[in-house]
Amino acid sequence: MIKVTLMKKVLEGNEDAAEANRQRMKDARIFSVDMMSSPGSGKTTILERTLDALVADLNIAVVQGDVYTTRDAERVEARGARAVQINTEGACHLDATVVGEALGDLDLSDTDILFVENVGNLICPAGFELGTDQRVMVLGVTEGSDKPEKYPAMFRRCSVVLVNKIDLLPVLGMDLADFTDAIRSVNPEIEILPVSALTGEGMEAWYQWLKDGLIARREE
Amino acid sequence: MIKVTLMKKVLEGNEDAAEANRQRMKDARIFSVDMMSSPGSGKTTILERTLDALVADLNIAVVQGDVYTTRDAERVEARGARAVQINTEGACHLDATVVGEALGDLDLSDTDILFVENVGNLICPAGFELGTDQRVMVLGVTEGSDKPEKYPAMFRRCSVVLVNKIDLLPVLGMDLADFTDAIRSVNPEIEILPVSALTGEGMEAWYQWLKDGLIARREE
Repeated sequence: MIKVTLMKKVLEGNEDAAEANRQRMKDARIFSVDMMSSPGSGKTTILERTLDALVADLNIAVVQGDVYTTRDAERVEARGARAVQINTEGACHLDATVVGEALGDLDLSDTDILFVENVGNLICPAGFELGTDQRVMVLGVTEGSDKPEKYPAMFRRCSVVLVNKIDLLPVLGMDLADFTDAIRSVNPEIEILPVSALTGEGMEAWYQWLKDGLIARREE
Repeated sequence: MIKVTLMKKVLEGNEDAAEANRQRMKDARIFSVDMMSSPGSGKTTILERTLDALVADLNIAVVQGDVYTTRDAERVEARGARAVQINTEGACHLDATVVGEALGDLDLSDTDILFVENVGNLICPAGFELGTDQRVMVLGVTEGSDKPEKYPAMFRRCSVVLVNKIDLLPVLGMDLADFTDAIRSVNPEIEILPVSALTGEGMEAWYQWLKDGLIARREE
């Protein structure tokens, strides 16, 4: 298909921009995370709860990617983060260039952790590195346990997957093992953190992972 | 962003191929439906249940789009449909050209209803008409009621939305009206069919809609 060739050119330009973002955040000693998932997996709710837990001690910025609205940026600003909204105007993923522009709108010297909330999409964002330190997937248990096998690129390129909405497992008649087995079959190395952004279950391990990442960054 | 220009050329080629598919299915008096949704909304489960209800009386074919696996094609073939699998090998949507190739692998003279199950993605498939008679969205209630506002292109280009997993509404503490209001705010004309592919609730209205479509096609 013609699209593959076109996409290759776009990807090459993206890599240079990603490297520039990476260096810029390293210089500012920021720990940064690209959060990716299907629409409706609970990324923004996880961010809201994370902000509630961490904003008292840390300065957090969010680059918010969305196809059209500014709804999610408003939600995280209400919880004490500084947010920059990127509207992709129909495009299906963020790229490193638009994220670089967003970084210019933030005071990086005063930021500890920076989240990029990518557009809800299990396919296109996988190919576009943004220059963050880590890439994290959110998988809602209501999406079904076949998703890792169906969208393997995403799961292979992330270091952590938050398995969200675990409070619904009994209602769905499913076990956590259905998901962990499916995830490990495409990426045996990935760290799996089962959470419920609604009840708070499991969220402490996620906060600790973020704090460990920030400490490691500062010790570089 | 460079991607917009590139995408425009791809879209123009797609329109010709879609028109050819449309004419071909019209000539064969097939009623055809492009089914689109987020990953994990329940498209394949809806198709399985639909096949159970209709295969005794109608010949049904499914063109199954997936990024890598053939898992969904196997599921619908087990229920009595003829299925052709398209693996997009990483691409984020089907286009009319690959669907046209799949039509060549099917005996169209012996088909009443043809479903295209698009790649799970709320953004990219919206721009690519495949040449089907109708485009249908599936929205799982677990995805949240903000999805129509966040992905309006998809909801504006469909004539029907199946609001699926309504058996989970009480567990989520949500009402059907949360979804119908959100959907109508971006597309006041769209037909909304609340269903549970798990319990079968509401599915009769969907089967009737399909049968009405087939009757209309045969009367053309």
